[in-house]
Amino acid sequence: MPELRKDPVIDRWVIIAQERAKRPIDHLPASIYDSKGFCPLCPGHEVKTAQPVYTDWIGSEDGSKKDWRLRVVLNKFPALVHDGDPSIQKDGLYEKMDGLGAHEVVIETPEHHYSMADYDDDQMKSVIIAYRERILELRKDSRFRYILIFKNYGIEAGASLSHPHSQIIALPIVPKRIIEEMKGAHSYNLKHHRCVYCEMIQQERLFQQRVVLENADFIAIEPFAARFPFETWILPKRHESHFEFINGSAVDRLTTLLRDVLWRIKQVLNDPPYNFMFHTSPQNDPGNLDYHWRLEITPKLTKVAGFEWGTGFFINPMAPEIAADLLNNY
Amino acid sequence: MPELRKDPVIDRWVIIAQERAKRPIDHLPASIYDSKGFCPLCPGHEVKTAQPVYTDWIGSEDGSKKDWRLRVVLNKFPALVHDGDPSIQKDGLYEKMDGLGAHEVVIETPEHHYSMADYDDDQMKSVIIAYRERILELRKDSRFRYILIFKNYGIEAGASLSHPHSQIIALPIVPKRIIEEMKGAHSYNLKHHRCVYCEMIQQERLFQQRVVLENADFIAIEPFAARFPFETWILPKRHESHFEFINGSAVDRLTTLLRDVLWRIKQVLNDPPYNFMFHTSPQNDPGNLDYHWRLEITPKLTKVAGFEWGTGFFINPMAPEIAADLLNNY
Repeated sequence: MPELRKDPVIDRWVIIAQERAKRPIDHLPASIYDSKGFCPLCPGHEVKTAQPVYTDWIGSEDGSKKDWRLRVVLNKFPALVHDGDPSIQKDGLYEKMDGLGAHEVVIETPEHHYSMADYDDDQMKSVIIAYRERILELRKDSRFRYILIFKNYGIEAGASLSHPHSQIIALPIVPKRIIEEMKGAHSYNLKHHRCVYCEMIQQERLFQQRVVLENADFIAIEPFAARFPFETWILPKRHESHFEFINGSAVDRLTTLLRDVLWRIKQVLNDPPYNFMFHTSPQNDPGNLDYHWRLEITPKLTKVAGFEWGTGFFINPMAPEIAADLLNNY
Repeated sequence: MPELRKDPVIDRWVIIAQERAKRPIDHLPASIYDSKGFCPLCPGHEVKTAQPVYTDWIGSEDGSKKDWRLRVVLNKFPALVHDGDPSIQKDGLYEKMDGLGAHEVVIETPEHHYSMADYDDDQMKSVIIAYRERILELRKDSRFRYILIFKNYGIEAGASLSHPHSQIIALPIVPKRIIEEMKGAHSYNLKHHRCVYCEMIQQERLFQQRVVLENADFIAIEPFAARFPFETWILPKRHESHFEFINGSAVDRLTTLLRDVLWRIKQVLNDPPYNFMFHTSPQNDPGNLDYHWRLEITPKLTKVAGFEWGTGFFINPMAPEIAADLLNNY
């Protein structure tokens, strides 16, 4: 059973998941990452994955379900598991709890060699809808306090398989970073009676120095205090606290904007490794006027070194204004 | 001029240092990292480095200064610079300031192919004394609010030159991570009337599950909530808020313990890349009973991926108890 442990000084939890060292990738040469023959996520190898929890079937004329466009399966080497006690145990000075949660893999496409930047609208929309549907399902379990969706693309960004996939983790606690952002947004609102992210969007649209792209519902910007070169945020232009409440034409507009942003990043930076992650309100919060969801995309171009780990302070060798200009004008 | 920018939601600053993209390493093949012929830090190439600010000379019988054991020079491609205005400028929603500070390189030894794990006592002691002397000097400039000492060892840990070196950065603000730790330690002290790190040391010595090594003045442990496999902390056993107050036999005991810990990490993990960084009280704090300085050593064995960036939440596949056992018994 994995274990959640809390740092006794700052409110940071870690998952000690000894089991994950047993992942086959840890004992095999790196070539498996790209080896189509061994890919457990490819069509025809469905038996190699754990239990599916969601499938987007490609409709056939006679109504039979034959091929899938996208599948979500349980992670075979989960960082957190479904059975466990959500209570906190004391161990002298320390606190820990069972590694309770969920860990799922979104197999985004049957095509092994695609990258998300190359998806057509149908494929990208299928991914966004799968994210929404899984959060809406997982949030029914009240033991889960936060559901995180993220993607590691490329070995350097932490991916262990090259087949296009993303991950969903449901956690029994709200992560430190989200708590900090919610607190910061709440303070701003108390003082200025406005959502700080709405204010940021307004200012960026006015200045036009860091806007990458926008459409009727979404905007992509390089944030003012970007930690990384080409760090890009996608935000809904109207205030919305929860990603999973997205519907109607907003799904289509997020689809096209995300495709366009990823395609530009791929072209300008020569298909770099990257991570993306959704920042959204905790799912058991009914909705709030402070915190505004967003998708953070961080290309992996520089190494994060001792300075960053030691301080939570980042050195970024690329001004976000220049990055926005390069992406916007491609 | 580099620029410091503050995130408008959380209290995180970044350095936008566009100049650093001009470092020669950015335009050269990676082979320069190991190429002795081109090493600007080697003896005989002193003209290639910027101004020296500290030198440990090897004494010669006739009293002349001929060879150096260690040199500290200004960084030729600094993330922060000495001239600048420490006042904060508003830019609508945002805050920024000049990239004021200092950025120095500690050339730890003339020997290009040594690693810190192989130093003899004289060499290691020379490094520790250089760290102390530079902090004692830099803290005289009251514009500097925090002085960080760190080391990146190996390309994967962010080093851009292989010649053994570490870095010193003086900052005009106290970094987020240190503020958080000081707040956490202060709350603990208010509640329990004791330093939380002193308490941690006592508990670790009692449990003997996560102790790597100890001597009369220092202890090395794997922390309970380790973020990374083989993350190791070295702490003074008696309460001390500031690293730079180290003196007398404590210097010798830190020397021997640090050498031994790095040597064991090298042996057990096959000379891994790693970062280390000192966590200490802000230098303009006269001394306090809450915060206890330490050296954090983090071998770079796993990739930090979207999950970690998205949450400030880490997945560690190696229980610290097992890591401590492996290091302790080597």
